[in-house]
Amino acid sequence: MRLLTHEHEGRLRPAVVTADGTGVVDLDERLGVGGLDELLVTGRLDEARPLTRAEPDHRLDTVRFRRVLTWPRKILCIGVNYRGRDAEYREGPTDHARPSVFVRFPDSFVGHEQAVLRPPESVQFDYEGEIAVVIGREGRRIPVERALDHVAAVTLADEGTVRDWVRHARFNVTQGKNFAASGSLGPWLVTLDELGGPAALTDLELTTRVNGEVRQHDSTATMAFPVAELVAYLSTFTPLAPGDVVLTGTPTGAGARFDPPRWLVPGDVIEVEVPGIGILRNTVADEPDPAAVTS
Amino acid sequence: MRLLTHEHEGRLRPAVVTADGTGVVDLDERLGVGGLDELLVTGRLDEARPLTRAEPDHRLDTVRFRRVLTWPRKILCIGVNYRGRDAEYREGPTDHARPSVFVRFPDSFVGHEQAVLRPPESVQFDYEGEIAVVIGREGRRIPVERALDHVAAVTLADEGTVRDWVRHARFNVTQGKNFAASGSLGPWLVTLDELGGPAALTDLELTTRVNGEVRQHDSTATMAFPVAELVAYLSTFTPLAPGDVVLTGTPTGAGARFDPPRWLVPGDVIEVEVPGIGILRNTVADEPDPAAVTS
Repeated sequence: MRLLTHEHEGRLRPAVVTADGTGVVDLDERLGVGGLDELLVTGRLDEARPLTRAEPDHRLDTVRFRRVLTWPRKILCIGVNYRGRDAEYREGPTDHARPSVFVRFPDSFVGHEQAVLRPPESVQFDYEGEIAVVIGREGRRIPVERALDHVAAVTLADEGTVRDWVRHARFNVTQGKNFAASGSLGPWLVTLDELGGPAALTDLELTTRVNGEVRQHDSTATMAFPVAELVAYLSTFTPLAPGDVVLTGTPTGAGARFDPPRWLVPGDVIEVEVPGIGILRNTVADEPDPAAVTS
Repeated sequence: MRLLTHEHEGRLRPAVVTADGTGVVDLDERLGVGGLDELLVTGRLDEARPLTRAEPDHRLDTVRFRRVLTWPRKILCIGVNYRGRDAEYREGPTDHARPSVFVRFPDSFVGHEQAVLRPPESVQFDYEGEIAVVIGREGRRIPVERALDHVAAVTLADEGTVRDWVRHARFNVTQGKNFAASGSLGPWLVTLDELGGPAALTDLELTTRVNGEVRQHDSTATMAFPVAELVAYLSTFTPLAPGDVVLTGTPTGAGARFDPPRWLVPGDVIEVEVPGIGILRNTVADEPDPAAVTS
């Protein structure tokens, strides 16, 4: 089952893609849920399943995608997690035993086919293709052997980064990871059954392209901390609940790692692809009105 | 005006303290707002003001305080920000020009007089007394000279920290700052007029006591980045909106900085006090049932 959020008549609407892949069925009208966040939080995901056979409300190729989850309560992001990536950091992590974890706010992401925005504060605008998992069942201190039972779905992310702002202070990458609309999340949630079950998470092929050129390509099989370990670890300190999102880290090949660096410029097209999930595509634009916005 | 969240008949309820300081008036009953978050987000803060003269619904000394804001969309926390604190970090920040920023999730905080929980994963449980400011007006790229106009209120925090988990990875302190119920936020929001206006933010005296012993004492006058600069800086990358919270950093004297360190143990009483705001008081307890919680 593939679930998306799109804008229709000025409102964000949750929808499920029909079984033939050509249409979408509105979940607000059929189930009375305001969004995918609510569908997950209220434990009603399975009610969407029979609607994949319903009469579509819109053609899929006409929908205007928006951030796939409107306002997840927790978006946890993992730093350096693909084995090759350590080598890119000359100093290297001090402790390989634990993942590096940071947080992004939802409004740092747009949806599929929306513009990702380069802010006027920096030209060091960079992509990071990632696989994101969405929690479907609450838990704290989840044992690693049961962790994948807590994952409802996967989606894709461009964990877009303003690279120089990541190092504004000695610790913490928060500011470079949270510029408004600097990343993307989508195009849709794909439930694990669609991939053949949770085991598929251990060998997904992730590719990031910029203007058609492959920049990142790796398999989740090389992750230092596979999804199950991430879910178990994160839930040690923070309760995970339906609708929470974990971005699982990016492979080698972000623009910062080239010499000279290859920063994104307006018009560049970023594609993050995983077979079985789909393609997340976004075009870079400068912020249309970077003046101070105050009310 | 002082506004609080308390639990009554199994529900979280927003309330305003009466002018004589002895009672509270329920804001859900009078204004139909479900919580202080909603009161702020909907721009209705001023509607609470005349209710400070209304007949109280409860005596203040009987209310059961809860986290003052139920689920802020953004809680931004500032690292090392009081001048004396730099010296505590032997290596020192690499760049003093910008604040260090991390994020806490709301459920890492309890409210006034609730237990803060030491998790079974560590004995390095520590306090950090802080002043928190609450945004009252939305803005992006807010000029520093107008930044305080965007602050609606202040409150207090114990930015409770599991110290060894802060250094689980080279970057980012996320995990040591987000153990469930490890910190506290409250007891109430105090609107700036109550302090004599925004200028008061530049010279508030903050004291943290553990079991009555003063551990931290400093003035916001010594902040490396005063509140106005923090609001301006943060709003450069992320839009700030009513109900968002900024924790402004802690002075020298956290338990980790003693030799040997003085970690919190069950039964310890932490008090964070600022004249004009009040006292935030919490007792340390071990997690009552630290077993895996899964559904």
